[in-house]
Amino acid sequence: MAALDWIAVDWGTSNLRAWLIGQDGAVADRRSSDQGMNRLDRAGFEPALLDLVGDALPADRAVPVVVCGMAGSRQGWAEAPYRAVPCAPPGLDAATEVATEDPRLAVRILPGIKQAQPADVMRGEETQIAGIFAARPEFDGTICLPGTHTKWVQCSAREVVSFRTYMTGEIFALLRDASVLRHSLGTEGWDAAAFDAAVSDAMSRPAPLAANLFSLRAEALLADLPPETALARLSGQLIGMELAGARAYWLGQPVIVAGNGGQAEAYARALEAQGAAVDRLDAEDITLAGLTAARAQLRKAAS
Amino acid sequence: MAALDWIAVDWGTSNLRAWLIGQDGAVADRRSSDQGMNRLDRAGFEPALLDLVGDALPADRAVPVVVCGMAGSRQGWAEAPYRAVPCAPPGLDAATEVATEDPRLAVRILPGIKQAQPADVMRGEETQIAGIFAARPEFDGTICLPGTHTKWVQCSAREVVSFRTYMTGEIFALLRDASVLRHSLGTEGWDAAAFDAAVSDAMSRPAPLAANLFSLRAEALLADLPPETALARLSGQLIGMELAGARAYWLGQPVIVAGNGGQAEAYARALEAQGAAVDRLDAEDITLAGLTAARAQLRKAAS
Repeated sequence: MAALDWIAVDWGTSNLRAWLIGQDGAVADRRSSDQGMNRLDRAGFEPALLDLVGDALPADRAVPVVVCGMAGSRQGWAEAPYRAVPCAPPGLDAATEVATEDPRLAVRILPGIKQAQPADVMRGEETQIAGIFAARPEFDGTICLPGTHTKWVQCSAREVVSFRTYMTGEIFALLRDASVLRHSLGTEGWDAAAFDAAVSDAMSRPAPLAANLFSLRAEALLADLPPETALARLSGQLIGMELAGARAYWLGQPVIVAGNGGQAEAYARALEAQGAAVDRLDAEDITLAGLTAARAQLRKAAS
Repeated sequence: MAALDWIAVDWGTSNLRAWLIGQDGAVADRRSSDQGMNRLDRAGFEPALLDLVGDALPADRAVPVVVCGMAGSRQGWAEAPYRAVPCAPPGLDAATEVATEDPRLAVRILPGIKQAQPADVMRGEETQIAGIFAARPEFDGTICLPGTHTKWVQCSAREVVSFRTYMTGEIFALLRDASVLRHSLGTEGWDAAAFDAAVSDAMSRPAPLAANLFSLRAEALLADLPPETALARLSGQLIGMELAGARAYWLGQPVIVAGNGGQAEAYARALEAQGAAVDRLDAEDITLAGLTAARAQLRKAAS
């Protein structure tokens, strides 16, 4: 196995993920833990990182660690102040260096991006965007990053022009897990036709959302609505409303949807049903590509 | 004090409320507990009622107990099957008699109302509607009953013609208490101008709801948005979207808003800003009036 060259880290609200990169440029190991920002105070970050990767560190030198995500927020490890749009995804020259007690670590945290009007922020997604620019250098159009807080990002000439965050994923999870609807929703199975119809309905009439959702409960009581149909309609109503709201981002634009699993699949399907030209990328691939692009800046600066 | 004549009971999901009515027709006592349906299995209802009112029961006779609400659901004390719209609020002739172990109780549970298309149900509100009909015998128009699940009810000739439930109150509570927004919201204070502006914005553009809500978090981070302003905007966005969805119910109609506290105040204010003619009634008054109207039927049948 090649000796360790550097470590890429995506440190979010709920999770810590690290890739150990060898001097041959290949990923030697992937590791993750539940030590997200929400579980840590400032003094907890270095021990959490050492728990995850400490055994892999050489004794005789400092290994570069390039971090994106919530670790750079005010409540994180060290604040990496936001850049303002329009801007390129911030690189290592804008990163915050973090002093560590362990001399084997050389940690830099990448900044997020902010927008004054409409007020919005991102931390971590800017690095995914950098990864997309690395994979698609000529791309001009819209990037959709599905997640708890889905981002719609207007990109031109490798800059972020504007963006908008929809907290649709968080609302979906709250309704699924903690509302009266939880009694009527399936945990497995999916009704694709019901999803498509709900997207279409919500796009043309978003305002009755809160009534259409209660109807899922009522139909379960009165007409034995299948749980997988109820779940697909809940998702379709919420995503349809979001597509109606974000129409200016995707209408007539090339769209990249970068994400994994059922949620990204649902966004891509709904967009394609509207005639959008959708390109799909893997979330982990682009995160690692963005961190790698930042690491390459460091190497270039050092040479 | 006049001897006990009967007991009015509103048994909801979260709470049990009882009024002890004397033979002079006056309310001798109001009592309540947290023994709502959610906390009880079938065998738990009679003990919960006896805990609340058992000390007031005479030893030598059965006291009529008239119950509305979730106690009549399938998971409740005894199922009182729904009546279907269009219909008058169901009276005691449609009630379910419940056999009790304690001979001092003569319990009847009033049915709810169902609607096939769009699928919808109510339990408890039908009795409030009966109370409104008792207070406003000539009323034709729309009744709005704000709550966790707000009801919009089209009424004509003392019948419920159609209705629609918006789970806006539940969504508001989930976002306030359990979402990322909780860090940015006040627990006291209210910004009335921000509420009005958010209602107006959401009525004209409901689809970007999930982005406008995330902006509350972003403005708190970037521009120190006051917590009372954020709370009022959350409420205004959700109620504005509901008013846009329920427009056919209130536009050009006389509207009665029956409810208490800040939530009913917010609905009335938002409706009046749209030029609706709003009449306000107290929620407890109309619940008791509806149960009293049912009790009067029993008396009439017995005479």
